[in-house]
Amino acid sequence: MMRILVTNDDGIEAAGLHALAEALRPLGEVVIVAPDRQQSAVGHALTVSEPLRIVPFRSNGQFVGYAVNGTPADCVKLAVTTLLPWRPDVVASGINHGRNTAVNILYSGTVSAATEGTLLGIPSVAFSLDAYEAEADFRAAAVIARAIVERLPFLRLPTGTLLNVNIPALPLEQICGVRITHQGRSLWRDWYERRRDPWGREYFWLAGEYVLADGDPEADDVALTQGYVSITPIRYALTDTASVEQLRQQFGELLPISDVSHAK
Amino acid sequence: MMRILVTNDDGIEAAGLHALAEALRPLGEVVIVAPDRQQSAVGHALTVSEPLRIVPFRSNGQFVGYAVNGTPADCVKLAVTTLLPWRPDVVASGINHGRNTAVNILYSGTVSAATEGTLLGIPSVAFSLDAYEAEADFRAAAVIARAIVERLPFLRLPTGTLLNVNIPALPLEQICGVRITHQGRSLWRDWYERRRDPWGREYFWLAGEYVLADGDPEADDVALTQGYVSITPIRYALTDTASVEQLRQQFGELLPISDVSHAK
Repeated sequence: MMRILVTNDDGIEAAGLHALAEALRPLGEVVIVAPDRQQSAVGHALTVSEPLRIVPFRSNGQFVGYAVNGTPADCVKLAVTTLLPWRPDVVASGINHGRNTAVNILYSGTVSAATEGTLLGIPSVAFSLDAYEAEADFRAAAVIARAIVERLPFLRLPTGTLLNVNIPALPLEQICGVRITHQGRSLWRDWYERRRDPWGREYFWLAGEYVLADGDPEADDVALTQGYVSITPIRYALTDTASVEQLRQQFGELLPISDVSHAK
Repeated sequence: MMRILVTNDDGIEAAGLHALAEALRPLGEVVIVAPDRQQSAVGHALTVSEPLRIVPFRSNGQFVGYAVNGTPADCVKLAVTTLLPWRPDVVASGINHGRNTAVNILYSGTVSAATEGTLLGIPSVAFSLDAYEAEADFRAAAVIARAIVERLPFLRLPTGTLLNVNIPALPLEQICGVRITHQGRSLWRDWYERRRDPWGREYFWLAGEYVLADGDPEADDVALTQGYVSITPIRYALTDTASVEQLRQQFGELLPISDVSHAK
């Protein structure tokens, strides 16, 4: 029997969260600790300057899980360090409305929840469905999520590595298979719409289009678009080791620091 | 003459921001576009569900820069895509109150501003001073920041790589030198304080202590603690390539997807 913490960034009322929790219940004990509202594009934000509250959330009188007035990373940290009476075997985040691939991983609250789980030393996984409409069908994604979570504690991933899973919006029998991918290079071409409020004051709203910039079938976006489940092992080892030696040569002149002061 | 966008996560009134902007003015044209309030630990958050406003910010009647009701990443994206009449040669973020090393890089709004600059294709750098008190002395850090920004466009860093610079809180002549470092492995040991508000309702507040877990003199925290300026080239190439092959073997059984449905 596994103990599983389920969270997301779309908030505790999101359909994808409940599809995930229901799919995982046969595996053991599942507890939901999720943001009390939509938290998309929050990145790996943590609430440090405000108090957090934990409110039992009910739907039709039935206890559903715990709602937290914070970010996905807050939910995981608070649940693991403080709220839960046990340490989870797995942190499962999602199922997100919309793909979290390429550069989107940096902005994704769904992935950041799994990142926080990983930082706490717990095998963690983020799930996203490539569908944006409110009535998206999470059934196939839920089956796949269960199959992956079941295996997660046995994969022996290195500490610090998590799985980022993206699932095509297709019926299960139309999904082509699973591909282990790398983070792709697709990018947003974005801009701000300049508008005026009813009082004549100017405001700006982020808009943009996602540009699929990869052709490599092993890139996350390409696998997904071709109808495959994309599983990317990700890791926040951010050092650009290839640049270290170059910089040592270039900054040699800055040693010792007395040379720097000549810049004054 | 360089064109430099200066931002931060401590907000437009922070002393470290103005120390940085003043230090860079001799290099060319400097424009400040910064959050209208403290935005620490926001990670790489972007505001997508709210309008953003840009307000000219004045101090003693003097124009200082543009304040934005958003995150550091919002400030950079909005400035570069919409507000500025020119494309910056450099995005400089900081000078942050407090070090941004090891795991803190993931949470740091200061670093996320530089990350957004890098995503937009602009050479970018984040500066942090290892001091937390309101009256911190940014003078030495400002001299070092200028020396680094001056060189940044000529370093020929790969697209996607930014510099994360941490500076000891010492007078310039006591700083030992510059070290090119890697992101260290230090971690927060954190917990939530459980408190009651004046109405008897429970709340939780994040607390913690930072555990220096590295001994390697080339780790960012160690260099900084030993009195060196730490410069880490960082890059959001998140794929854990070492795990890709292992996962291909482990998930072989998930291909084709029909096998997954047996998990039902």
